[in-house]
Amino acid sequence: MCPKKQSVQSKSNTVSIVPLIEKKRDGLTWTNDDIRYIVDAIAHHTLPDYQLSALLMAIYFKDLNVQEIAAFAEEIILSGTVLDVRSIALPKISLYTIGGVGNKTNLALTALVASCGVVVPNIVTPQESFMFGDLDKIKAIPGMKTDLPLETCVKQLKKIGCCISQQPDSLVPVDNDLIKMGQATATANCLPILVSSILSKRIASGSENIVVDIKCGNGSFIRDVAQAKHIASLLTKSIRGLQRRCVALITDMNQPVGNTLGTALELKEIADVLQDRGDETLKELIIRLGMEMIRLSGVSGSTLSAKQTIVQHLKDGSAFKKFKELIKEQGGDPAFLDNEKKFPKAKHTYKIVANKRGYIHSINMAFLAKGVEVLMRQDKNSPIDPAAGITDLQPLGKQIQPGDPVMTIHYNDTSRFNTAMEYLRKAYCIAPKRPSNSDLFIERVA
Amino acid sequence: MCPKKQSVQSKSNTVSIVPLIEKKRDGLTWTNDDIRYIVDAIAHHTLPDYQLSALLMAIYFKDLNVQEIAAFAEEIILSGTVLDVRSIALPKISLYTIGGVGNKTNLALTALVASCGVVVPNIVTPQESFMFGDLDKIKAIPGMKTDLPLETCVKQLKKIGCCISQQPDSLVPVDNDLIKMGQATATANCLPILVSSILSKRIASGSENIVVDIKCGNGSFIRDVAQAKHIASLLTKSIRGLQRRCVALITDMNQPVGNTLGTALELKEIADVLQDRGDETLKELIIRLGMEMIRLSGVSGSTLSAKQTIVQHLKDGSAFKKFKELIKEQGGDPAFLDNEKKFPKAKHTYKIVANKRGYIHSINMAFLAKGVEVLMRQDKNSPIDPAAGITDLQPLGKQIQPGDPVMTIHYNDTSRFNTAMEYLRKAYCIAPKRPSNSDLFIERVA
Repeated sequence: MCPKKQSVQSKSNTVSIVPLIEKKRDGLTWTNDDIRYIVDAIAHHTLPDYQLSALLMAIYFKDLNVQEIAAFAEEIILSGTVLDVRSIALPKISLYTIGGVGNKTNLALTALVASCGVVVPNIVTPQESFMFGDLDKIKAIPGMKTDLPLETCVKQLKKIGCCISQQPDSLVPVDNDLIKMGQATATANCLPILVSSILSKRIASGSENIVVDIKCGNGSFIRDVAQAKHIASLLTKSIRGLQRRCVALITDMNQPVGNTLGTALELKEIADVLQDRGDETLKELIIRLGMEMIRLSGVSGSTLSAKQTIVQHLKDGSAFKKFKELIKEQGGDPAFLDNEKKFPKAKHTYKIVANKRGYIHSINMAFLAKGVEVLMRQDKNSPIDPAAGITDLQPLGKQIQPGDPVMTIHYNDTSRFNTAMEYLRKAYCIAPKRPSNSDLFIERVA
Repeated sequence: MCPKKQSVQSKSNTVSIVPLIEKKRDGLTWTNDDIRYIVDAIAHHTLPDYQLSALLMAIYFKDLNVQEIAAFAEEIILSGTVLDVRSIALPKISLYTIGGVGNKTNLALTALVASCGVVVPNIVTPQESFMFGDLDKIKAIPGMKTDLPLETCVKQLKKIGCCISQQPDSLVPVDNDLIKMGQATATANCLPILVSSILSKRIASGSENIVVDIKCGNGSFIRDVAQAKHIASLLTKSIRGLQRRCVALITDMNQPVGNTLGTALELKEIADVLQDRGDETLKELIIRLGMEMIRLSGVSGSTLSAKQTIVQHLKDGSAFKKFKELIKEQGGDPAFLDNEKKFPKAKHTYKIVANKRGYIHSINMAFLAKGVEVLMRQDKNSPIDPAAGITDLQPLGKQIQPGDPVMTIHYNDTSRFNTAMEYLRKAYCIAPKRPSNSDLFIERVA
């Protein structure tokens, strides 16, 4: 009994935070000073955990308006160190993907947009990824360093225009506290906190503007379009309070984008698309997001010229060249990408085939993700098998005959194969009718 | 950073509590097992503070239904020791007053109802009182012991049918934790928690049934009748799940009940009313609540006979005799009540008089309470001056002439007199029109 009693009573600041919790609980708006007080208290560890969690739950129910979100983001940025890119004269932008199984766009666009003369600081928060992340993918190349000090990131950005590195603890530390507390108290999916988190991280890592890909569907934690639109609107509006701009694309995550899942397998697919070949849907999404990044950076005057620039940099090999520069700069062997044999290869493969005639009517992306996770590692803390995964994923809406393959499974560990199959077998639903809608692009919000 | 990180991650039970927080956050109903799990975790200190506060905030927004409230109360009772009154054959009942400045009914009815042959265990939680409490009042009698061990309480209940004592930490310990956490996280006024708290405390202190006086008005934290009715309904309905009964009276707290405020001054007034004299409104409320207690205990068959019993025990001196027995049993000198000179007397008195003609149109009970608090002690932790307070409070609706007294102030400490006067002077509002409604009884809920 005693420790708990003391922890509640011994903090002298409890007097001043309770009225702020009450204010939000009762649906009122926090002032900038209120928010500064809260973020300061989190940063200096004077806000007891139990008050922070009550505060998050009150936000969950009563929301934050766009001014409050902007103020939160601003204070969170000030709570830590930032990537100081003032010495780089080129425009800086970053892409953020919310939710999404097998997302390959961040890595591809880091190189592609950098090749167009825009600086892309890709600082990755490990918690961000849906299953495994960009860092896991790039680490399939032996020797890659992905925990660069911030000063090294700045130097590299100056030299080659892009970097990919893990977010250090010193960057937006309050945001890390909020994420952990959210996970422990069922307040993690609190939208306004998520939005201020996104804004604070991207701006602290040097971006002037942000393009966001909001994945919506059974392969994202955002299931419905209304929620995705709400997030997009919060993002684009609240970033204005920070004198920056944001374009958000809402895209469908009820279908694979690209046709692979797995770290080395996806990396191979990224290398392919940067050489202007490979999956058309993936390429389409990369072109679309790249156009938005180029336009927002002020490099291209019109949508058409932005598209031309992007397409040209894919075609003329400069995007792929930039990707190899990135790998070399961070200690990896760029020849790895040119040499099929260097890629890790699984001992076994297995084809799942369709058992009836019809159309691929729906794909449970979460089941695909779950199956790949099982193939890839024992549990969340085990090392990832880079060779494991899926290739030749067939797209939504495709007409199919009995015996046609729908995916190829790559695996080394036979002990987990059966468990993985339980998910993967159920992932594809074939029906006589073509699905009514399989559009990749749902909406653009700016 | 480290201590916080550890506190969030080191607890292994975080896995199982988060889904329960989510359940309530999403408006679902907890099962009895869920509630047992939660209360057990609080009781065994395995539920981290930050999860408890998130859980309370979720309850604040999503409420508990009557089954959940009953289950909470039951589990809270089981979390500690209880007053074991099984050896006493007589019916046991207690009165609970929610909110209220200068509440004199609990003490008076403890003696009055006990004199009618019903056992009244009056175990007082210090946090319950609005300003100062019954324990402070009874302690104005030198020598009174008010922290009796539970076994002593049981012996005394057996012997004289009543006791008044401070709730030990071992009784409903989880409830104490909830109260403290509530105060630190702006979730203290969470109605379903308040209701299960009331039920658990009264049942753990040996009561079979409960009568509740819900004060509603500017002298209570319950300001509007709708909220009072909601509490009354929750209380009466959820107690059925515990195989017990509850009658709730909603009474007006926009007016004084009795005409004194202050510890010794109120004790004197209680002694008066137990001798069938003194303020009529106070007597009326005591008779009404006493009837309900007697009826609910099964001692009187009809409302009429219950009223006759109560009135008779006031008139024939047995209620007052019981009160003196109570005082003697707990170490006080009962002669104190018979001897005006033994009562502490303030050095100074001051009469506030009306400055215009009209009716007493409204009385700010919270201002009266604040004024008395200032007269009585330096701050919350200072000792109480038992002689300080107010007498001759004039009732709501009374017709008044300029110069007529509205109250008499008793004080020893002249340094705080001016501050007290700022509140007290503003407490009475005199207007040309009679107030439209000054009924004491608003509603009976059973």
